[in-house]
Amino acid sequence: MVTILDVARLAGVSKATVSRALNGKVFVREEVKERIFQAIAETGYRPNQLARNLANNKTNSVGLVITNGLYNGPFFASLTYHAATNSEIHGRQLVLADGKHSAQEERDAIDLLMSLRCEAIMIYPKYLTVDELDAIIDNSQTPIVVINRELSRHLNQCVFVDHQQSCETMMAHLLAQGHTRIAFVAGAEGSPTGEKRLAGYQQALRRAGIEPDPQLLVHGAWSTDSGYAAGRELLARKVPFTCILAGNDDMAIGVAKACLEAGLRLPQDVSLAGFDDSVLGKYYNPSLTTIHVPMEAMIRHAIDILLTPGEHAARSHEGELVCRESVAPPK
Amino acid sequence: MVTILDVARLAGVSKATVSRALNGKVFVREEVKERIFQAIAETGYRPNQLARNLANNKTNSVGLVITNGLYNGPFFASLTYHAATNSEIHGRQLVLADGKHSAQEERDAIDLLMSLRCEAIMIYPKYLTVDELDAIIDNSQTPIVVINRELSRHLNQCVFVDHQQSCETMMAHLLAQGHTRIAFVAGAEGSPTGEKRLAGYQQALRRAGIEPDPQLLVHGAWSTDSGYAAGRELLARKVPFTCILAGNDDMAIGVAKACLEAGLRLPQDVSLAGFDDSVLGKYYNPSLTTIHVPMEAMIRHAIDILLTPGEHAARSHEGELVCRESVAPPK
Repeated sequence: MVTILDVARLAGVSKATVSRALNGKVFVREEVKERIFQAIAETGYRPNQLARNLANNKTNSVGLVITNGLYNGPFFASLTYHAATNSEIHGRQLVLADGKHSAQEERDAIDLLMSLRCEAIMIYPKYLTVDELDAIIDNSQTPIVVINRELSRHLNQCVFVDHQQSCETMMAHLLAQGHTRIAFVAGAEGSPTGEKRLAGYQQALRRAGIEPDPQLLVHGAWSTDSGYAAGRELLARKVPFTCILAGNDDMAIGVAKACLEAGLRLPQDVSLAGFDDSVLGKYYNPSLTTIHVPMEAMIRHAIDILLTPGEHAARSHEGELVCRESVAPPK
Repeated sequence: MVTILDVARLAGVSKATVSRALNGKVFVREEVKERIFQAIAETGYRPNQLARNLANNKTNSVGLVITNGLYNGPFFASLTYHAATNSEIHGRQLVLADGKHSAQEERDAIDLLMSLRCEAIMIYPKYLTVDELDAIIDNSQTPIVVINRELSRHLNQCVFVDHQQSCETMMAHLLAQGHTRIAFVAGAEGSPTGEKRLAGYQQALRRAGIEPDPQLLVHGAWSTDSGYAAGRELLARKVPFTCILAGNDDMAIGVAKACLEAGLRLPQDVSLAGFDDSVLGKYYNPSLTTIHVPMEAMIRHAIDILLTPGEHAARSHEGELVCRESVAPPK
């Protein structure tokens, strides 16, 4: 059984410092905290404060709101996994509530978590706008962090990736391989993530002196099934292209099936890439070139903002290009 | 905006009957309920009782306990999706709590959900034994349903698939294709699901007059990464086989990568099958033969037991063979 003492020894600090870093009631230097969390990861230490907290009538729980339309895929599974694991490292219990199908229901889910006495809340919004999120933060007594939206009025209460920049990085790679006819399977219409990736695609083309061809743009809805449908639609247009970039890995796998059914080989006849670095893409045949979204680092950052006092450096997380087998130079 | 009246019209019943079926306070005939839920699905009706309930100081929420070690994959994502969607159909909010890494922590998560005033709780156990689950149900005031365990003392409070029977069905298919040297990548050791699938594999071989060869058995831990490692281990043994059955689709995709890296073609050189009918397997190339686990029907059944009064027929759900491209007769 690993104890807090083992963590303290490995991190070269006192037990009290480990406690302080975990309960976040007082300030601990960033560099020391990093060492402690490293030691926790290495020793596998698991603080179990729940029983104690229940006796004190504190739930010591962190709430997470996501709409169930996003549940059904590996991206959400990974997000929830990291949220639960990192809540636990801080001695908190993750409680998930469903944001359902509208901004009002996302608000209801936040209210529910507050009524359950969650001490802090993370929201991965689908329907609430930036203005609405700003207002919720302004009016809340409970600390709130918004994941995957840039809130310029609350830069210390949001954690996000620059999706446009990530998409430009991916496009630079595809263009450098020699592709100029690159099709794009965009995410769900109205999705800020989808719109930023689309903007990155168009921006990168224009910068390379290529006018985006509307015939090479189709919309999916993030799921693998929708990617398959989008891939079939694209192929049915009979316009030439040498590469397809999908707005996420799930859709890319669906696009791949449409291509294979049409007798196209990947990557010999057509190159394919996605976003998110999901486990699907890593194990697909051919393995999928993608952008790694640093979900674990983002969730750690979000929980750090919520549970440890003091100023936190506002920063955008960086997506990282992962080159695999599904992209090759055009024939 | 779809209203309860639209649902009532389509189902051919009164608004009051729809209400009764949803809030489960009084008896509604099974056949009528089925029609109403069908109408809800067709119209997309979404009862929003949360705001009202909060005002009444009732949370009207259904709790779900799963350990975070199971979060990180499409199977969990699908389970949570169906749990949230079906809770919502009953006007309830799903609240998820993390069972973490031990029977005690699974118990703590149940206690947390009770302290949050959840009106009913589903648990998908990993660590709690059947005896411990029986005792929890005996001592709880809150209705509890256990998913994926057969509790012979509480057959009305559990929902499960006969994993051994499903595996025998799969094996009968593989044997009928002419395979006799069939390797098995078992799930995590100690997992009841894994043990039942393994028992089905061995039983089916013996019934066909084939003594199970320990050289053809490797253990994974459910994840795709663990399937890849198990596949490499199996191949390193240099024992002949013509087919690999993996304990779930996630591991099968990992096994596939190990085979491809060894220069084996699927299914020409080796056949491959899994369990769960995950979206990964459906879109994999070649698409994966598997057993469909009726997760949505199981979750509906669980929520029906929890929220509608009266006796419920105890029954095991049936896994269903899904034949795709990854299995062919041996060369």
